[in-house]
Amino acid sequence: MAEHSDVLLAEPEKMNNGWHGLFGNGNPIHIEVGTGMGQFIIGMALANPDVNYIGIEHFDNVIVSALEKVIDAGKPSNLRLFRANGMDLVDIFSEGEIDRVYLNFSDPWPKTRHVKRRLTHETFLKLYEAVLIPGGEIHFKTDNRLLFEYSLVSISSYGMKLRDVSLDLHAAMPKDNIMTEYEEKFSAKGQPIYRLESQFNNL
Amino acid sequence: MAEHSDVLLAEPEKMNNGWHGLFGNGNPIHIEVGTGMGQFIIGMALANPDVNYIGIEHFDNVIVSALEKVIDAGKPSNLRLFRANGMDLVDIFSEGEIDRVYLNFSDPWPKTRHVKRRLTHETFLKLYEAVLIPGGEIHFKTDNRLLFEYSLVSISSYGMKLRDVSLDLHAAMPKDNIMTEYEEKFSAKGQPIYRLESQFNNL
Ligand SMILES: C[S@@+](CC[C@H](N)C(=O)[O-])C[C@H]1O[C@@H](n2cnc3c(N)ncnc32)[C@H](O)[C@@H]1O
Ligand SMILES: C[S@@+](CC[C@H](N)C(=O)[O-])C[C@H]1O[C@@H](n2cnc3c(N)ncnc32)[C@H](O)[C@@H]1O
Repeated sequence: MAEHSDVLLAEPEKMNNGWHGLFGNGNPIHIEVGTGMGQFIIGMALANPDVNYIGIEHFDNVIVSALEKVIDAGKPSNLRLFRANGMDLVDIFSEGEIDRVYLNFSDPWPKTRHVKRRLTHETFLKLYEAVLIPGGEIHFKTDNRLLFEYSLVSISSYGMKLRDVSLDLHAAMPKDNIMTEYEEKFSAKGQPIYRLESQFNNL
Repeated sequence: MAEHSDVLLAEPEKMNNGWHGLFGNGNPIHIEVGTGMGQFIIGMALANPDVNYIGIEHFDNVIVSALEKVIDAGKPSNLRLFRANGMDLVDIFSEGEIDRVYLNFSDPWPKTRHVKRRLTHETFLKLYEAVLIPGGEIHFKTDNRLLFEYSLVSISSYGMKLRDVSLDLHAAMPKDNIMTEYEEKFSAKGQPIYRLESQFNNL
């Protein structure tokens, strides 16, 4: 892992020169929280060279699989991985450093006593807001109906606006949709994929 | 029709003593815009005697069918019908006179050039806001995915909050759900029924 520290970063704290310094350009930075094996973020990095991407994943063994895929993809210069818990976003990024947050097939945490672990809980929305530019966006895909219903209410209650909603993404698949591992698995079973784009109301 | 003018009101303008005067009590008033044959509003009136209901429908022949059903149901004293276009709500009701608006299986108007006719278009949201109490609610059910996706975005863009969303109402059917004619028809075909509760942010 150490020999690939150019891709899978080890530094646990805010980068000295900030993330734009690390990428060496002023392009927008999009992060994915819970990036899993990395298929989505790698596909996005290859498709959009003018955007910088950071995949964040808290499990060691999972992020190592993502690292292998990044290496296979030729280590795109606009892509980094970072092992961290989404809870610690404000230790990793400065205020307004990020332009967009992606959440894909986040763990549903169906039990009410685990509601605070859902990545669209108010607790996380506050963290995203803190590191995003004003008017920053969250793009969220899932097959999980209960999590999506919850997220619509949570995001709306936070005062965010929904900009786009699809309740069957694959019925009219957008040309630029990059499938995640879970998306391939669940859509193959015929389950509808839900998607939303939402924006913080702090412009 | 004239002999049932106690139920199907003829007066086109604001009632002289207001709708609470007509019902003879101060109970909340809930209206349905696009009431069709009336199955929902009759069921609601019978189930909730402490709420006053007004079914609004713009087609003569449709509202006459609704009238026949209201007569069959024994003319509940907390129910009235009114032939009108939803566009004219502010001529029918005073500011803050209404407590809740129901929309059920509203015409989808799928073409972009007809978007203003959708009952969740901003134009209609403004009218509902004008006749509703502060913090008044819209409850909306439909089988139409595109209309529901549109409505989530439209309602959210208006600054309203979503309080509850179901993307498959019949998967865990609420005990107090009263089916509409269209709901019976489309759910029998196995289509998911979408539902939302939303609230104006003007408390
Ligand atoms: C169900 S998987 C989905 C993976 C991938 N996004 C996809 O769509 O195929 C969820 C991933 O999010 C990670 N995860 C969950 N909660 C997290 C958190 N608070 N911080 C970082 N990663 C998290 C999990 O370890 C897991 O790899
Ligand atoms: C598809 S039907 C649904 C009827 C009923 N709500 C149900 O769920 O079974 C829609 C009804 O709304 C009425 N409608 C549509 N636009 C309206 C408007 N602007 N004002 C009043 N009624 C309207 C139509 O005439 C029609 O009866």
